Amino acid sequence: MKVLLDTMSGDAPPEEIIKGAIQALRETQGTNLEITLVGKEELNREEVERLEAKDLHSRISYLHAPNTISMEDTPTKAVRSNPDSSLVKGVKALKDKSEIFISSGNTGAVVAASLFNLGRIPGVSRPGLAGVAPTVKSGNVVLIDIGATTDAEPLNLAQFGVMGNAFAKNVLGNSDPKVGLLNIGEERTKGNKLTKQTVSLIEKTDLKYIGNVEPHLLLTEPPADVVICEGFVGNILIKAFEGGVEGTVGFFKQALRSSLRSKIGGLILRPTLKDLKNQLSYAQFGAVPLLGVRGVVFVAHGRSEARAIKNAILKAREASRWDLPGKIKTEMERIDFSD
Amino acid sequence: MKVLLDTMSGDAPPEEIIKGAIQALRETQGTNLEITLVGKEELNREEVERLEAKDLHSRISYLHAPNTISMEDTPTKAVRSNPDSSLVKGVKALKDKSEIFISSGNTGAVVAASLFNLGRIPGVSRPGLAGVAPTVKSGNVVLIDIGATTDAEPLNLAQFGVMGNAFAKNVLGNSDPKVGLLNIGEERTKGNKLTKQTVSLIEKTDLKYIGNVEPHLLLTEPPADVVICEGFVGNILIKAFEGGVEGTVGFFKQALRSSLRSKIGGLILRPTLKDLKNQLSYAQFGAVPLLGVRGVVFVAHGRSEARAIKNAILKAREASRWDLPGKIKTEMERIDFSD
Repeated sequence: MKVLLDTMSGDAPPEEIIKGAIQALRETQGTNLEITLVGKEELNREEVERLEAKDLHSRISYLHAPNTISMEDTPTKAVRSNPDSSLVKGVKALKDKSEIFISSGNTGAVVAASLFNLGRIPGVSRPGLAGVAPTVKSGNVVLIDIGATTDAEPLNLAQFGVMGNAFAKNVLGNSDPKVGLLNIGEERTKGNKLTKQTVSLIEKTDLKYIGNVEPHLLLTEPPADVVICEGFVGNILIKAFEGGVEGTVGFFKQALRSSLRSKIGGLILRPTLKDLKNQLSYAQFGAVPLLGVRGVVFVAHGRSEARAIKNAILKAREASRWDLPGKIKTEMERIDFSD
Repeated sequence: MKVLLDTMSGDAPPEEIIKGAIQALRETQGTNLEITLVGKEELNREEVERLEAKDLHSRISYLHAPNTISMEDTPTKAVRSNPDSSLVKGVKALKDKSEIFISSGNTGAVVAASLFNLGRIPGVSRPGLAGVAPTVKSGNVVLIDIGATTDAEPLNLAQFGVMGNAFAKNVLGNSDPKVGLLNIGEERTKGNKLTKQTVSLIEKTDLKYIGNVEPHLLLTEPPADVVICEGFVGNILIKAFEGGVEGTVGFFKQALRSSLRSKIGGLILRPTLKDLKNQLSYAQFGAVPLLGVRGVVFVAHGRSEARAIKNAILKAREASRWDLPGKIKTEMERIDFSD
């Protein structure tokens, strides 16, 4: 199986991305994993040379893409006008389900390039990014959509539920996932127009729908295994979690400097704190799949450095076994959202 | 000055609310703070009796309200059909700016009752709740709106900026606040329809507008002092921060049980951790003001227990000095949002 890796579009420089790719290949010695580095070929070749990865040469190939789409670019415009960018060329090169594209670039552009070049799975109105967050007491929780579709409509949200459910079943091995709707109150009367209109559509499915879920429970003991949210809101949500974690750690570090006693405690706990920081870092989770398009595409965090890229590749590698696009297609054929 | 305190509408029972009121009165001995307990008079009198607060009798009065609006009720319907509820009677009883209403009840109902009975400040299209969050490195940050107006429109958001700015200037003493827009990317091209349309309206004001602000920076080192958000999104945001903090603390507690070394470190740090938990608890912040209505109304967290209520009262007490409705009126008269 092959991972097509965009080396040019993230915040980190190509050398950092390539370092992650090489780490992933070293950790999977003896497997059939191959990586195609998508970007400026000469630069990428030099970098592989510099990292002394000669033993991996047979597992690394190159796809030349001289241009870059930046975080500032308007997605659809950039994708249309920049066919020689690493982001667009990488998506276009995807052949079948044994191939996976990973980019830490402009999320909107990855979505647009996937829609233009791979197309949607029949029945899917809009794609969704499925994030997986760890919880203190209940295993993992799937959050969909965390940023593929802003200004999403009720039908889009109901379908995110169907796709997130397929993801939890097939990828996370949860045989009977409970599905909830992200909302500002647990009561049925709470919410905005979108959440209220979404409920009646969700109720047309055979999802195990348990109602509204509030954000403050999501990382501790969420009542659902899959939580549906609108793309703008979902992206704010995960970045707020990131902020909540970083804020808590920051205040804690300040508190550790407040007295001799706390300084001593902090020294003793240094390894524990380091483990915790790793456990909660986005880099641990690598990348999230874009569900609803006809191909396997993963979006990594824009800030991704080597470790995050390595984890993204290892996680995406498992993806080839799931055939999630096929599973989602089957689910979509089964459900009728029309009146 | 007088605080009208809704004893019936929160998740906590009246005895817990009244306990907070008595703590606030004890901490303000010798001041002119008076509290009117709004709820079932007999029950409230019995509770004050039971808490042996005889010395405070001259500072406590009662407003009988036999009914309750619950968290499940639909706000406008409940407010219209339940004039004898503590929530509605409390708002209605507000006379002038020396009086303040505080409720930990259904936020939507507090907003609806305030709109029906106090009305909006001239020029204000929709009210906003102004939350204040602590940051690791940059003092406090104002987040507006955190849940008063769901399905808010561009004009509402631009006005939240004006009101939040007045709040930061007058209440937080920030003479030149920087104002930002909550968004999913820092680049101008990022966002949904609402954020894109809001920018051109903000640019008609003389706010010190610095552009988009991403959620992950808000609790550490936000680039703005006032951050504008839509009400549904803002409510998700603060509940996600709550979740991020609770999740981090939960994972940390798990980590503290992982080895003998970490157990020892945890014991030494127990007082530090307790201080930190208090520092980051919503209970520390008490209540948030509803800006844009002709009166001083504070909403406390639904889960508020005695300490949170006490802090809400002490914070709201300062409010009588600000005349924020007056300040907002002056600002609104100065700015022309029309084309």
